[in-house]
Amino acid sequence: MEKMARYKYTPLMVFQIILMVLFLVFVKYGGSDDVDIKGYEDTHVMIFIGFGFLMTFLKKYCYSALGFNWFLAALVIQWALLCQSFYHMKDNTIYLTKKSLLEADVMSATVLITFGAVLGVASGTQLLFISIVETAVACLNLYLVGDVFKAADVGGSIAIHTFGAYFGLGVSSAFRAKKVEAPGATRLDGPSYNSDVTAMIGSIFLWIYWPSFNSALTVSPAEYQRAVINTYLSLAAATVTAFIVSSMVNHQKGKFDMVHVQNSTLAGGVAIGSVCNLFISPGIAIAIGIGAGVLSVFGYRFLTPALEKIGVQDTCGVNNLHGMPGVYSGILSIIFAALATSANYGTELGNIFGAMEDGSRSAGTQALYQLAALGVTLVLSYGTGFITGLLAKLPLFEPLKESERYDDELNWELP
Amino acid sequence: MEKMARYKYTPLMVFQIILMVLFLVFVKYGGSDDVDIKGYEDTHVMIFIGFGFLMTFLKKYCYSALGFNWFLAALVIQWALLCQSFYHMKDNTIYLTKKSLLEADVMSATVLITFGAVLGVASGTQLLFISIVETAVACLNLYLVGDVFKAADVGGSIAIHTFGAYFGLGVSSAFRAKKVEAPGATRLDGPSYNSDVTAMIGSIFLWIYWPSFNSALTVSPAEYQRAVINTYLSLAAATVTAFIVSSMVNHQKGKFDMVHVQNSTLAGGVAIGSVCNLFISPGIAIAIGIGAGVLSVFGYRFLTPALEKIGVQDTCGVNNLHGMPGVYSGILSIIFAALATSANYGTELGNIFGAMEDGSRSAGTQALYQLAALGVTLVLSYGTGFITGLLAKLPLFEPLKESERYDDELNWELP
Repeated sequence: MEKMARYKYTPLMVFQIILMVLFLVFVKYGGSDDVDIKGYEDTHVMIFIGFGFLMTFLKKYCYSALGFNWFLAALVIQWALLCQSFYHMKDNTIYLTKKSLLEADVMSATVLITFGAVLGVASGTQLLFISIVETAVACLNLYLVGDVFKAADVGGSIAIHTFGAYFGLGVSSAFRAKKVEAPGATRLDGPSYNSDVTAMIGSIFLWIYWPSFNSALTVSPAEYQRAVINTYLSLAAATVTAFIVSSMVNHQKGKFDMVHVQNSTLAGGVAIGSVCNLFISPGIAIAIGIGAGVLSVFGYRFLTPALEKIGVQDTCGVNNLHGMPGVYSGILSIIFAALATSANYGTELGNIFGAMEDGSRSAGTQALYQLAALGVTLVLSYGTGFITGLLAKLPLFEPLKESERYDDELNWELP
Repeated sequence: MEKMARYKYTPLMVFQIILMVLFLVFVKYGGSDDVDIKGYEDTHVMIFIGFGFLMTFLKKYCYSALGFNWFLAALVIQWALLCQSFYHMKDNTIYLTKKSLLEADVMSATVLITFGAVLGVASGTQLLFISIVETAVACLNLYLVGDVFKAADVGGSIAIHTFGAYFGLGVSSAFRAKKVEAPGATRLDGPSYNSDVTAMIGSIFLWIYWPSFNSALTVSPAEYQRAVINTYLSLAAATVTAFIVSSMVNHQKGKFDMVHVQNSTLAGGVAIGSVCNLFISPGIAIAIGIGAGVLSVFGYRFLTPALEKIGVQDTCGVNNLHGMPGVYSGILSIIFAALATSANYGTELGNIFGAMEDGSRSAGTQALYQLAALGVTLVLSYGTGFITGLLAKLPLFEPLKESERYDDELNWELP
C-alpha cells in the first residue's frame, strides 16, 4: 500500500478534468451589470486568509490547516459554481458573473466550517470526499431556503453557518463509533504560543470583513448600510462581551482564553447574519452581539467538553461559533419576520421578504417559512452529514489512525 | 483577592450594557448617501490587523498586544460613535451612516497609539479606564480642531496622532513617579526573532493602507487623488530614508534596527497627514517623507533612551512614530495655510480651509488657527493624559507589579 500513497489524490485529478469538461459544455460569460458588486474581494480574503489562518491554532497542524483550507476551497468554488447554478439554468446554460464568484466563495465557507469540526481528525481523502458531497447538498438546501421558502437570510447564518456546523457535527457523530482510546493520542491536540498568534491573523481578518460578507448580497443602498452598521455593532459588542465572559468563566485568576478570543468575538457576525439587513435599530444590534458573546463562550467552556465526553469531536468548536449562533440568528429572523410590516420597511419590504410586499404572504406566514428554513437546514445538514461521515469511514477514504491525528507529518514534507 | 480576579472585568459589562441602552435611546440609521465612501475597509484593517500585529514585537506579550488591541478598539468604536456625534446631534438623535463607522475607527487609533506608549506597563483594568476617558477628551479635542478652529487636518496628524502620542506620554509621566528599580524587571522588554516577524505584518499593512487612511475624509476627487499620491510618496521616501539612517546610526557595523524598520517607515504617513490634500506638489511630498524618516530614526536612537532615563516609558516609541511626526505635520500645516491662496486652490479652497473661501479668514488667520489646533491638542492631550495616569494608579485599577510587566502570564491561559 505504501508505494501507492503517491496516487491517493489522483482520482481527484479526474474530478478536476470532469469539472473542466462540464464548464466547457455548460458555462458562458453572463451580463456584466454586477461588476461593481460590493464585498467580493473582502469575502475572498475571509475564505482564504481568514478561515485558513484561524485553523492554524494547533501546534503541529498549521501546514494542513492552511493547505487543506486552500485545496478544498479551490475545489469547492469550481464545483459550487455548477451546483448553485443548476437550479437557475437558462437553455441548459450557466451564465457566470462576478456575483457568481461571490456566491461560490460564500458556499465554500460552508465546507470550511465543516472542516473546522473535524480538523486534524479527518484524512485528506476523507475531506475531499466530504467536500464534494456537502457542496451538492448545501446548494440544494440553499435553493430550498432562498428560492422555495423565500426566507430572509442575507448573511447566510441559516444556509451557510448552521448548515456547515451541523453537517460537520453529523460527520463527527459518525466518526465517533470507531474511536479508540489510545494513550497519548491527543498529545498534539492543542496550540503553541506561535500557532495561537498566527491563528489571530485569520480571526481578525474574518472580523474585519464580516460586515462586507453580511452585506454583499443586499440590493439597495439603505439595506446595504443597515447590514454593515448592524454587523459592525454586533461584532464589537460580542468582542467586548467575549473578553469579559472569558475572564469570568476562568476559575483560576480571571485569565482570558485564546480559544474564546479567536472565536467568540466572531459569533456576533453569525448571530446578526439573518437579520442584519432589517430595521432592527443599532441598539438591538448591540444587544444581539452581547447575547452571541455570552452564548459562544459558554458553549466553549461547558458544551464542547460535554460533547467530547460522548465522543463527538469538534476541534475548532464550530458549534459555538457557527452552529448555535446560526440557530440564534434563525430564531431572531422568525421573530423579526413576525414583526415586519410595510409601515416599517416601505418599498424595501419586497427586497427583504420576497413574498410579503404584494400581500401573498402575511408576516405570520413569513415567520413560519423562516422556521421551515431553519428546521430543514438542521435536519438536512445533520442527517446527510452523518451519512457522509459513515461513508467516509470506508477504507477507500483512508481514515486516520489515532496516532496520525493533528499531525502534519502524514501529509507534508517537514523542514 | 485571588478568588475575585475572575470578576475584574465585570464592571465593564455594565458599561457595555449602558452603551446598548444609549444606542437604543439615541441612535438611528442615517441617510445612505455615503455608502460608497472610500477608505473604510482599509482603515478597518489598519486598526485591527495593523496596530494589533505591530505591537506583537515583544517576545512574551503577543497575546496581550493582539488581545487588548482588539478589546480596547471594540469598546472604543462603540463609545466614539456616541462621543463624536454628541456635538452634531439633531433633535436629540444620532444618525449613523457608513461614514460614522469610519470616523469611529479613526478615533480608536488615538487610543491604540496611547496603548503603544504604555504597552506591557499598564494593566488591563488601567487600559480600559484610560481608553474610556481618552475617547471622551479626544472627541472634544477633535471638535475643537475641526469644528471650532476649522483647521486643515484631513489625515488626523494633529487630532489623532499627536493627541494619542502625548496623551500616552502624559500617562507615562504620571506612572513614572512610582517606578521601582527592581533587578531583572525589564527582562521581557524586547523582541524574539518570531515576534519581530509578526510585528512586520502589522507594520506593512499600516504602510499599505495609509494612503486610504489619509484620503478617507476628502470630499472631491482631485483632493482625494492628491491625498493618495502625496501619502504614497511621503511613505516611500520615509522608508528609504529610515533604512539608510538606521544603518548610519548603528555604530557597530551599519546594521539595520528592526524597531526603525517597523516604525520610522510609517512616519512618512503621519508627517504628510495634515497637508496631504493640499497642492504641495509631489516633490515636496518626498521632501516631507525624507524629513520624517530622519526625525523618527533619530528619535528612536537618541530621544527614547533619554526619556527612559528620566522615567518616562514609551514602549513602542510612539513619540517617534506619532508624536514628533504629528507635530512636524502640524507645523507644515501652519506654513502651507499661510501660503494658500485661491489662485492655487480655486474652488477647492473652501473644501480644505473652511473659512477662507468667502474671505472671512485671511491666509495668515488660517495659519494662526492651525497653530491654535496644534497648541490646544498638545496641552489638552498631555495634561489630561497626566491626570488620567495619576487616577489610573489608584489600587482600584490594579497597577502592575514590576515583575508582572511585559508578560502575558498574568492575563492569559498559556499553552
